[in-house]
Amino acid sequence: MSTEEFAIRPIGWVRASRGTTTDDFWGGTVARIELDAAAFDPSSLAGLTDFSHVQILYLFDRVDPSTIVMRAEHPRENPAWPRVGIFAQRKKSRPNRLGLSTCRLDSVDGLTLTVAELDAIDGTPVIDIKPYVLEFEPRREEVRQPAWMSELMRDYFSPYQK
Amino acid sequence: MSTEEFAIRPIGWVRASRGTTTDDFWGGTVARIELDAAAFDPSSLAGLTDFSHVQILYLFDRVDPSTIVMRAEHPRENPAWPRVGIFAQRKKSRPNRLGLSTCRLDSVDGLTLTVAELDAIDGTPVIDIKPYVLEFEPRREEVRQPAWMSELMRDYFSPYQK
Repeated sequence: MSTEEFAIRPIGWVRASRGTTTDDFWGGTVARIELDAAAFDPSSLAGLTDFSHVQILYLFDRVDPSTIVMRAEHPRENPAWPRVGIFAQRKKSRPNRLGLSTCRLDSVDGLTLTVAELDAIDGTPVIDIKPYVLEFEPRREEVRQPAWMSELMRDYFSPYQK
Repeated sequence: MSTEEFAIRPIGWVRASRGTTTDDFWGGTVARIELDAAAFDPSSLAGLTDFSHVQILYLFDRVDPSTIVMRAEHPRENPAWPRVGIFAQRKKSRPNRLGLSTCRLDSVDGLTLTVAELDAIDGTPVIDIKPYVLEFEPRREEVRQPAWMSELMRDYFSPYQK
């Protein structure tokens, strides 16, 4: 198998009020995604508002590649949580620096989507948008996750506290 | 904003019995993902089995770039379904050719994951693995999708019929 690299090109960019990275308090935030007008027209989004949610794939482009974790470490450097592998956590400093968020879709206007609680900062390159489809989600079985993750996520989607 | 391209490098590859593309009947299939041993060791997967499900990001590398859809078309070329934009369907021939599947994680052994019903064919490059986290999924609201998608998905995860 080849380890060749693949080129990924942004399809659009995030427009959001938050311009620097913060871990928590994404609750109640609203962001826009503006598609690249040189590559797309509004037909690329036709029918999307028939879906309540979308999955946004994006690139953590502000992450310095030299900080990428390849092995295991404590999530958020918190020694109270176990050392887990980079593929067992959602840390930004990860191989390929890819982000994935499921968001409520509020509206589509031309080449602009408005979405709720997208945890990506202003200017983030978006590389795909997919409709959220129930049949692709966990089927016939319960979802299980470790206690540290539930604890870590406690304030992630809480409203912003000044 | 720059439209610069980003390089993505496979972190591993899918090992599966299905070697050519088919739309339906992924039910009951089992696949392995083998991480790139030149880049990773088993610590990168430490703690992953505490999660019941994983999200797999991969590249539809067998899709001919010349077939990529940028606008709207009938899903599966079925005129009974509406013409919808490429970002309102999950067709493989899409910008950046990125795939995303949520799978039940059955086991981890060294650098090999075994997952249920991964809808990717043998040799597919995997570009990220994330734990499935309940808090990142739809919150406080119902999920809604159009009837054509529910119809399209009817046999997607049905057992394979010879």
